[in-house]
Amino acid sequence: MTMIRAAVVQTDPVFGQVAANLERALALVPRECDLAVLPELFATGYQFRERAELGGLAEPVPDGAICRRLRDHAAASGTTLVAGLAERAGDRVFNTAVLVRPDGSTDRYRKVHLFWDETRIFDPGDLGFPVFAACGTTVGLLVCFDWLFPEAAGTLARRGARVLCHPSNLVLPHCPDAMPVRAFENRVFTLTANRVGAERRTGSELRFIGRSVIASPRAERLVECSRTAAEAGSAVLDLALCDPWITPLNHVTRDRRPEYYA
Amino acid sequence: MTMIRAAVVQTDPVFGQVAANLERALALVPRECDLAVLPELFATGYQFRERAELGGLAEPVPDGAICRRLRDHAAASGTTLVAGLAERAGDRVFNTAVLVRPDGSTDRYRKVHLFWDETRIFDPGDLGFPVFAACGTTVGLLVCFDWLFPEAAGTLARRGARVLCHPSNLVLPHCPDAMPVRAFENRVFTLTANRVGAERRTGSELRFIGRSVIASPRAERLVECSRTAAEAGSAVLDLALCDPWITPLNHVTRDRRPEYYA
Repeated sequence: MTMIRAAVVQTDPVFGQVAANLERALALVPRECDLAVLPELFATGYQFRERAELGGLAEPVPDGAICRRLRDHAAASGTTLVAGLAERAGDRVFNTAVLVRPDGSTDRYRKVHLFWDETRIFDPGDLGFPVFAACGTTVGLLVCFDWLFPEAAGTLARRGARVLCHPSNLVLPHCPDAMPVRAFENRVFTLTANRVGAERRTGSELRFIGRSVIASPRAERLVECSRTAAEAGSAVLDLALCDPWITPLNHVTRDRRPEYYA
Repeated sequence: MTMIRAAVVQTDPVFGQVAANLERALALVPRECDLAVLPELFATGYQFRERAELGGLAEPVPDGAICRRLRDHAAASGTTLVAGLAERAGDRVFNTAVLVRPDGSTDRYRKVHLFWDETRIFDPGDLGFPVFAACGTTVGLLVCFDWLFPEAAGTLARRGARVLCHPSNLVLPHCPDAMPVRAFENRVFTLTANRVGAERRTGSELRFIGRSVIASPRAERLVECSRTAAEAGSAVLDLALCDPWITPLNHVTRDRRPEYYA
């Protein structure tokens, strides 16, 4: 398959209202998409006060309630879904993105670079940056703050990913403008699904910036959602554009000179 | 020194008219700058037809004519200059950036990532990414296409560079929008000095895109030059902004997890 229709779904969840958040998010997924990306922690909300609060909100993968509902939707719609959730694994809890295919198979990525207070809520990801076959291509997952570290997207691209799915809960303003750079420097498509709205469960209010974005290997911004609305945007991705040759004599991977990198 | 005044000098050279190009470029350097960056191959022009053409235009560093003239200007003005030139070293020729201080001392960087036809004109840089003390801070040099490879700027930043000087001859459109990302992801200032105009010495015309840019560690665009004019832009760089802490709990270097990078 050289063309896939892919969507970013921008949501406005209410902390802790898992079932309602889940249904409102799935209702926004466009029909007849091959791939749809939902935000980080899209069903639970983001601002956990402390690790103990994850007790009732984290779930095992792939057998938890959120994963099961995603699988039902994927099977019924034929859409592969990527979404963020809190994953319980024994006494550890990860900020995880799952990839759920229409056939029911599920893969996961555990967020490697934790942001701010997440460092005391979650365990750091321990699975590195795996790539997965999905939608007839190869997909890599990132979660939110991972965008800042170029090696994260670079590692996925060098392992063959052509589409990077990036569930996010962005509060800093820089990522939507950076993703076309990540897409170009790796010659991949990037799909950043962010949320909107605010949470004030601790002393500091968090405002989420929206601007979910789909970027092409040519650094084009194919979709950019608003700063405030719960909405989805979709685009047809021509995977033939994922060409590592920047010029007839320059290849983004082979031109690297790691012997000089620190 | 926590504040320095720095400039990017955007030029419009004529191929091969070294003395005239040199004087016109130096005439654009703002007075009372601590640091000024000139474009790649600023005195010779860019589009060499073949390696043999470098015969009369490449020079030894630091004793060649262009370097000597830069030293004279630096000594007279008190401005540290960074500029690109073709460096002859025995039977090798490099696409080099020199850093010339008012005290006459000179350092060099040899372009590591060669672009397109440069691969048959120049030898690839063999000195890696060194950092230099200058202007009371630590400076790293990149040349043009090096911008695409995040490890180049990242290596310089991890070695302590706070100001990245980036002589360029850009023909692709992406770099001016990417440099604020490079600045933010490394928490450094970046100074990209590009040229304008066109060259058509082979079958294919090259059009240079201007838009020389100074970017801050906060991803701000402090200066952006026009697409067509020979002109300079300057800004005061507050080096205290080069703070590797993105949040009180996130450090751009210490948060890296190289065990997971490929």
